[in-house]
Amino acid sequence: MSRLETPHLILGGARSGKSTYAEALVMSMPPPHRYVATAQILDDEMARRVREHQKRRGATWRTIECPIHLADLLRQLDSEPAPILVDCLTLWYSNLVLSLEEGAIRAQVASVCDVLHSARSPLLLVSNEVGCGIVPDNALARFYRDLAGWANQRIAQACRAVTYVIAGIPVPLKPR
Amino acid sequence: MSRLETPHLILGGARSGKSTYAEALVMSMPPPHRYVATAQILDDEMARRVREHQKRRGATWRTIECPIHLADLLRQLDSEPAPILVDCLTLWYSNLVLSLEEGAIRAQVASVCDVLHSARSPLLLVSNEVGCGIVPDNALARFYRDLAGWANQRIAQACRAVTYVIAGIPVPLKPR
Amino acid sequence: MSRLETPHLILGGARSGKSTYAEALVMSMPPPHRYVATAQILDDEMARRVREHQKRRGATWRTIECPIHLADLLRQLDSEPAPILVDCLTLWYSNLVLSLEEGAIRAQVASVCDVLHSARSPLLLVSNEVGCGIVPDNALARFYRDLAGWANQRIAQACRAVTYVIAGIPVPLKPR
Repeated sequence: MSRLETPHLILGGARSGKSTYAEALVMSMPPPHRYVATAQILDDEMARRVREHQKRRGATWRTIECPIHLADLLRQLDSEPAPILVDCLTLWYSNLVLSLEEGAIRAQVASVCDVLHSARSPLLLVSNEVGCGIVPDNALARFYRDLAGWANQRIAQACRAVTYVIAGIPVPLKPR
Repeated sequence: MSRLETPHLILGGARSGKSTYAEALVMSMPPPHRYVATAQILDDEMARRVREHQKRRGATWRTIECPIHLADLLRQLDSEPAPILVDCLTLWYSNLVLSLEEGAIRAQVASVCDVLHSARSPLLLVSNEVGCGIVPDNALARFYRDLAGWANQRIAQACRAVTYVIAGIPVPLKPR
Repeated sequence: MSRLETPHLILGGARSGKSTYAEALVMSMPPPHRYVATAQILDDEMARRVREHQKRRGATWRTIECPIHLADLLRQLDSEPAPILVDCLTLWYSNLVLSLEEGAIRAQVASVCDVLHSARSPLLLVSNEVGCGIVPDNALARFYRDLAGWANQRIAQACRAVTYVIAGIPVPLKPR
């Protein structure tokens, strides 16, 4: 496959190198490079993480914050065909879980899948694998984990390429 | 490999699509389709999960509940050669941990491996990867995690096919 | 690739069979076999785990304990060219987190990477994937998880071979 086939879902554990890999793919395409940040900066730890990520990316990037209405933003950005990196879906799922009820969350994910099917811009999406530990002992964490697993499946199905990153090494899952 | 080679262990994280994949493999074979449910319905959340799974499967399925004595049940079902899906081993490991001491648990797992070596019926088994998070801070969870890892290794060794499912995408591990 | 290409990082979840696989690779080489144990025996549970591991290995092995100064020890052992197994890096990361501050930890990891680039002895290193569960709810666990992910990436980059072990099945990641 061409490594530039999109939409492209890049999955991996925490600090697996998935964002770095996704950024390198985007930067191999001509600018402008649009970075859609789903993080809501609620504390110092998160602020520090965001600054580290921004420092790593360079001046060719434009950052747009989007905690909730991702499908709407992607449709709007797609009026100018140029690469878009969404980093990351798992924080977006978190924001959805804290703001909406289950039906509305699933509708948001379905809307993003619709955009993935129709977008002209190269779309890259980063997401975490969160389901390979022990069953969490609180109900909200279990709900979140189930939702993230379900949503990752839906997004993977709507993407033409899926890559799993382990210790910085990209493993292509789709196409194989 | 033939995707119908069995016994077949289907591994994956929570909501990775492993059950859906296993059910599709079973349904590509002629009925009857036997579903061995290891879940013990102890609360509403579990009851809801079981109902969702049953709804997804169709009328060709017969469900047999089996929280503990899995090897005995599989031997009995094998008198009629037809596909059997065990979903899931991780809940079975949980039930064993809550009911038996370590030696007896390991003997139960060894008995299931014996059945895997001798069964005439196509056997498919679903299990979770639970060892890729942070070390749990309570001793029972660590004991469970170690046991699940050890048992998954034993079952994988006794199976002719092993598949890892990530975000709905099956990755064949054995044979490769 | 030759399965004996080194340095070789062997990654996997808890009880995935990664140590057993690494030990088998070392034992396919001529003795002496040096085992670098990073575990600090602080309680009975840890003592039991260490005894189990020692029982599995045979008389050809020499065990050296090394909770912190891993690069120094590896340089010293490398004066005699013979295989060295480090088991495991994740416990070493734990020891570093409990003893040093962030800059000094990163310097220790960088020193080990330097040794990996220059060593004449076959070096095998075992490490855990710890980043594929739910985000931990305490800050130290999150710091540890981020550090382990970052360090595994660095070590993987410095190694000529990387293997991921799932349910006892080795999956080569590098070279592919």
